[in-house]
Parts: sequence; C-alpha cells; structure tokens
Amino acid sequence: MSHRVVVVGAGFGGLFAIKALRRADVEITLINGTAYHLFQPLLYQVATGILSEGEVAPPIREVLRRQKNVDVRLGWVQDVDVERKVVSVAGPGIDYTVPYDTLIVAAGASQSYFGNDEFADHAPGMKSIDDALELRARIFGAFEVADLHTDPETIERWMTFVVVGAGPTGTEMAGQIAELAHRNLRGQFKHIDSRKARILLVDAVGAVLNTFGDQLSAKAEKQLDKLGVEVRTNTKVVAVDSTGIEVESNGRRERIPAMTKVWAAGVAAPPLAAKLAAATGAKTDRAGRIQVEPNTSLPGHPEIFALGDMMNLAGEDGKPLPGVAQVAIQSGRHAADQIKRRLAGKETGQPFRYFDKGSLATISRFSAVASIWKLRLSGFPAWVVWVAVHLFYLVGFKNRVTAVLHWFVSFLGRGRSERVATQQQAFARQAIRAYGDPWRRAENGEPARETVAEQAG
Amino acid sequence: MSHRVVVVGAGFGGLFAIKALRRADVEITLINGTAYHLFQPLLYQVATGILSEGEVAPPIREVLRRQKNVDVRLGWVQDVDVERKVVSVAGPGIDYTVPYDTLIVAAGASQSYFGNDEFADHAPGMKSIDDALELRARIFGAFEVADLHTDPETIERWMTFVVVGAGPTGTEMAGQIAELAHRNLRGQFKHIDSRKARILLVDAVGAVLNTFGDQLSAKAEKQLDKLGVEVRTNTKVVAVDSTGIEVESNGRRERIPAMTKVWAAGVAAPPLAAKLAAATGAKTDRAGRIQVEPNTSLPGHPEIFALGDMMNLAGEDGKPLPGVAQVAIQSGRHAADQIKRRLAGKETGQPFRYFDKGSLATISRFSAVASIWKLRLSGFPAWVVWVAVHLFYLVGFKNRVTAVLHWFVSFLGRGRSERVATQQQAFARQAIRAYGDPWRRAENGEPARETVAEQAG
Repeated sequence: MSHRVVVVGAGFGGLFAIKALRRADVEITLINGTAYHLFQPLLYQVATGILSEGEVAPPIREVLRRQKNVDVRLGWVQDVDVERKVVSVAGPGIDYTVPYDTLIVAAGASQSYFGNDEFADHAPGMKSIDDALELRARIFGAFEVADLHTDPETIERWMTFVVVGAGPTGTEMAGQIAELAHRNLRGQFKHIDSRKARILLVDAVGAVLNTFGDQLSAKAEKQLDKLGVEVRTNTKVVAVDSTGIEVESNGRRERIPAMTKVWAAGVAAPPLAAKLAAATGAKTDRAGRIQVEPNTSLPGHPEIFALGDMMNLAGEDGKPLPGVAQVAIQSGRHAADQIKRRLAGKETGQPFRYFDKGSLATISRFSAVASIWKLRLSGFPAWVVWVAVHLFYLVGFKNRVTAVLHWFVSFLGRGRSERVATQQQAFARQAIRAYGDPWRRAENGEPARETVAEQAG
Repeated sequence: MSHRVVVVGAGFGGLFAIKALRRADVEITLINGTAYHLFQPLLYQVATGILSEGEVAPPIREVLRRQKNVDVRLGWVQDVDVERKVVSVAGPGIDYTVPYDTLIVAAGASQSYFGNDEFADHAPGMKSIDDALELRARIFGAFEVADLHTDPETIERWMTFVVVGAGPTGTEMAGQIAELAHRNLRGQFKHIDSRKARILLVDAVGAVLNTFGDQLSAKAEKQLDKLGVEVRTNTKVVAVDSTGIEVESNGRRERIPAMTKVWAAGVAAPPLAAKLAAATGAKTDRAGRIQVEPNTSLPGHPEIFALGDMMNLAGEDGKPLPGVAQVAIQSGRHAADQIKRRLAGKETGQPFRYFDKGSLATISRFSAVASIWKLRLSGFPAWVVWVAVHLFYLVGFKNRVTAVLHWFVSFLGRGRSERVATQQQAFARQAIRAYGDPWRRAENGEPARETVAEQAG
C-alpha cells in the first residue's frame, strides 16, 4: 500500500504541496470546504466587478485533473486523532474519517474582527467568494440607492465608503472603489455625480502597506491621494454599525456616516489550529497560528506539517513569516520535499528557508508599488510587473484568457464586466445568524447532518 | 416640457421600446427591480457553468449609456394611479412616485408552480440570476456529495436530476446536465462515474418543444435520447419534496428519488398586471396576462401599453402570442412607434403584427433544433444558426467577446469556466421564508422600508 498523505485545505499551500507530490508513490486525499481553489489575491477584483467568480476560483478537480494520485473530498476537518492517525471530517450530509501516514494542515486563515464579531454584519470581510459577491452588491448598490435620494445627508452616507485595513487587500479595494467612482461610473447617473464619492482607508498602524518599507508606503500614499482616497493612518476603529463607523485618533473620537464598510484588517487561524496544538502539545501565537519546527512539522510529530497562514515560523529577520501566497507555496513545496525524502529513506528535518521574491500591490490601473529583491518600483513599471506575475500564477489556462480580456475591458476601456447584484447575499447573513452556519458549526465541532441542498429544502 | 414616458421593466420589451425612442423628444424613466438587463434565454448556461452572471446580465446603465433621455431607477412598481397618471414605487429604502404622460408596462412573467408554491423550496425556477446560481451550486454539488457516499441508493438519489417542463428552457437544461455528466465531469471523480447520472425531462404535454411542431419535437426527442436524457411526456408532477418527486402518468403514480430538481414549467404575470387590469377595467387571462387592444394599449387608456409576457394578444392563428423574446422586442418597438406617431400628431391605433422569425433551442453542443420561416433545421446546422442569433442579440460588446471564449471552452474543450458554488444561495431561501422577501413584499404592496444593505445589518 502506498504512503497515505492527507492534505487539509486547497489554498496555495495545500495545492503546491500536492503538485510537488505528482510523481511520488503516495495516495493523497485532499479535504476542502469548497470544491474550488480560491486565488485570494484577486478577490478584490471580484468585489469591484472586474473579474467573475470562476476566474479567481477554478474547480480543484480541474486544477488537478491530470494528477491521478489525488482524491478530492468536500468537507471540514473536525478533529485529528494524532495517536490513531485519523482525521474526522464533517461533509455535506455525511461525517467521515480518513486515515493518514502523513498529514499536511494548510487550512489558511479566516477574517478576524479582533473580538468584535458583530462588526461582520456591517463590514463584510474579504476572505471568500460570498464576501466578494456581497461587497459587489453593496458597492454598486450604494450608487444606485444614492441616486434615488434627495436628502443631502442621506446621499452622502450612501456615497461614503470606508475600507478598514491598509494592507495590500485594503489598499487595492480602496483604489478600485475610487476608480469606479471617478472613472467607470462617471456620467452613468442622472441625480448624483459618482465622482463626489468619498473613499476612506483607515488603519491603526502608521502607514499604508507598512510591510513594504517607508519608501513604497510613501509612494502608495501619494498615489492614493491622487486617486482621491483619504488615508487615515494611526486611526483605530472603535465601532461599526449599519449607518456608519466610529474611529479614534490621538484620543479624538469621530463618527463617519457611511453605509458601505469593508473589513480588510486582521486574520486568525481557524479553530482546527488550536485543536491540533492541544493534541500535539504545540504552542500557538496570538493569531492562533501553530509554532512549528524549522522544517514546518509539529514538535514531536514529524508526520504532521502545518503550512502557510496556519504556521508561526521565524524568518531570517527573526520575525514570523508573513501570511502571503509565496510563504504558503514555498512551505507547501518544502513539506512535499520532506515527505519525498522520508519515502526515499533519506534524513529529514531540513529547515524551511523562505525566499522572499518581493511584494506587489496595485493602487489603480497603470499604477502599483512593487518591491522585488533590492528593486523598489512604483507607478506604471510596477503595474506591468503586477500583470505579469498574476498572469503567471493564475491557475488554469481557460480562466487566464478571459481574465486578460476582462482586464482589457476594465483598464483600457471604462467598463466593469461583472456588476450583477444577487439579492440573496444580503439575506444569507440574516439566515446564518438565525439558524447558524452549518459550515461554521462543522468547523467548531458541532454535528452538520443536513446537506446544503437539504438546508434549502 | 418633454413628453414623459415611464417604462416598467428592463427586459427585452422595455429595453427595445426605450431604444426605439432614442431620438424622440421624450423624457423616459425606466423602473426596474434590478440594476441589470437579464438575457433570459441564456440563463441555463449560467446554471450549468458555461457563462458568468455578467455575461448574461449587463448593467442597464451600460446598455443605455449613450442614450441621454433615460433616467434609470431601482425599484418595484406598487401601483398605478391611472387618473392622476402617477406610478408609485417601492425602492430600496425609499418609496417614491413618478408621473407619466405615457406608461409602458413590461414587467415580464415570474415562475408559476400552479398553486403549489411549496415546490419552490425543492425545485428552484429558472427566472433570475439567483435561481441560476442556486441551481449551479445544487447541480455541481450533487456530484461532489454523491462522491462522498457509499450507500448505492443514496448515491443514486444524488445522481438523479429531474427537469420539469419540456419547453426550450427545460430542454436546454436537461441537455446541458447530460453533457456535464457524460462529457465535462467524466473522470473527475474517484468513487462515482459521472456518466451514470440519470437525467429526466418531465412534462404534462405530449411532446418536448411542442410549440416547434411535430417534426422538430421528434428530432429533439431523438437527440435527447442519444444524450441519455429520459423523456417523460404526458407525465404530471403531483408532489415535490427534498429527496424526490412524484409523477403521474396514465393514472399510475410513481416516486422518483432525486435530490436535484429544476422547475422550468409555467409562468404567471406579476401582481402588477392584476392591479392595472382592475384600475382600467381590462380583462386578464388564466396566466394573469392583460387583454390588450390590437395596438398593445389598454382598453380606454391609449396612454398605457402592456408588452411582451404581460400582454394577452391574439396572433394570426387566433391563439395568444407566446411569451418569447421576439414578441417582447417587437411589441416594445410597436409601442414606441405609437408614441412617436402621437407626438407627431399622427393617428394611432395601428394593430401590432408579430413577425415570427422562428424558434430555436440547443439540445447539446453542436446540436439544436431550429424553425426559421418555412425552414426546419436540426443537428449541427441548427446549432450554427443558434450561435449566430445569440451572438447578434447578446447585448453589450464586452460580454459578447468573453461569452464566445467561454463557448469555445465549453463546446470545443471539456471545461466549464464557472463552477463556483456560493454557500449563501441555499441559506437565503430559508431566510426569505423566515423573514419574508422585501422585494416580493414590495411587489405585493407591503411596505419595504429597509434597504438591502440595512437588511443585512
């Protein structure tokens, strides 16, 4: 019997680990809560009408269709029995277990509201396709509703957009909403001028894109300013409700009336991380990430690896590696490499060394900031690098071609191809609150007996 | 002051009426429940993963961006005061009124379950983008869930798909599900053979596509049979629940276990039709359509037109004109023409003459049936006509290009570009049942004070 590898999560970490095991004599079971891989760095383009869901979320079965040693299974991992080496899974309408010889845990991170989960109702996060579709409906809908009103205060409230979190996701969202208001939607309304929209980018830290270094932070801030985005750094969010947001800066509290809020601040490891840590005696950090050994395995459990956003591992500078795609991809490959060495009877334990290829963020069309090796680029050259890198990494050729076409439409033309508002996104949040989210329930260890289809019935 | 035209509905009827008034000295207000035009004949391609929502639903503001005499407003028309010539509208978070000199009512038709509204929970219709996304999640999800189960009966239940209604929409849906099972998904699952899926097409009438004539009905049935679709004509649906469907044929009742059901049978005019009929003294037919004058205006109200799916008007054969896109388009143009004549001081009342360009339905890739003038085509030639016609009518150039690319992917390759399942579609149905649908509430005359965004809050 082949060596059994169970991979939890079809993000960058899990997928690249699996691909690296393409020719290995292993039987892989991939367990994921959705049937698709999510290309998270482009999620903001779904939320702002540039790309379709399919373009950023190819089916896992398509991505791995040529790899015969993988069994793809839908479900949420509830728990891991590290003694018996079995994971228990809550799937749609069925609970099941999967035995492993090696376990790779790469379940990513979910949005964190820093203990204020009630903010989620008013400020959707940027973690899932559903988040993106809900934000798309809210953003485009806000202009439609503003156009119907006559009271200046009400119009202003609908035309104010607050993005919380000035990391790459938040910065890109703020930039795109500004582009929408100033360019794409310009002249499409009879009663409002979309260019009068107010877009704020708020963060408690002192600079936008603060991991990019002072030079690029300053450039990004300048580009945002030119786009009409109000940057509010050193500003903490203290309250969020349906009609506005309250911030605090230098001890001064201010209310900003705004119907549309986006939460792009803070992530936390899923509950599985804490369970795994408890079962193995590993430590977790404040964000819930598991402290791993230098080779990304768990202390005392060389057969269990934790990857990407779920791991806490110090980089060369002594600080924990950031939760970015490249860390996930490279740690996935490293874990696969460790497995192959073990199967070949070679010694394992080689430490994972992260090779920082750089950081990239678009501000608007034709304008980005990029930090590549020692190079610091901004403006158009950085944007060209951004396009090239994303084309290279967009998984699945089919989607790559239409994605490029949609980029042409959005960047050269004035259109947004995907502006549909589904009415159900908004209701769903109420339903989840009333009935509980069966997926989350599963994630937290409660039974999830009904299927999604049965739920609807 | 210009002549004020109010158009209710941005479907084919309303949109083509507006386009025909492009150069007229009129001020048009278009009121629609969504911000997009829905290209309904291609909705089944969204439900089966071929096209994205944006490709079949361009924003109204984009479609009409070069036409300066239109004001686009979001909302549901509640009522019409035919004496004061004012429509009252429930919009998102705001009720408002719009006065008119001429009123064009083209609000289309909604799904009818023939008095069994509880079927809707188990067998979503095919009328809206939300319907299509929910069906997409259910159809692709059914294969994922079947792959997790080991009990043969459970697997069979998940792999049985019943489409109710063998008109063009139902026939196309059944054909596409069969294509998915036999071609696109083949070999993508470890534990099931997707080709073993059972697809049934059920209708109470005696033939599929029965409005296409006996010859094409027979051809279509043969093509469906070749695809592996079980056609059950003369078969009435008597019950639908979460795990199956009950049918009756020749007095024999049979239960078909099936998790996935699609409702493509029956339409009814929206409540607005009855209100308008009551206010003007016009009659309605069994489907709720308004009996109009030969020029599509209402009896005694030459300033009010009812178009497309909302009107009952006899064609050359004495039977009411069918609820198809061409009838809507041509009646929209006719109403616009009547308005232009009136503004020019010319006599009006010219009867609307429907020019039947023919009927088209795809069965699968490379295979369709077409009835064009006296021509009866089937198989590949009919499919080529289908592609050409749909390209011509797909509104908005941007979407046309990517739609063609997606057709290439689906028809030449084996892929489906859009397979994302949003988890929220399923929950939403529960929420709507629990809280009531604010849009529908509005449609039925109940106050709709909260906005969609506030609903979510």
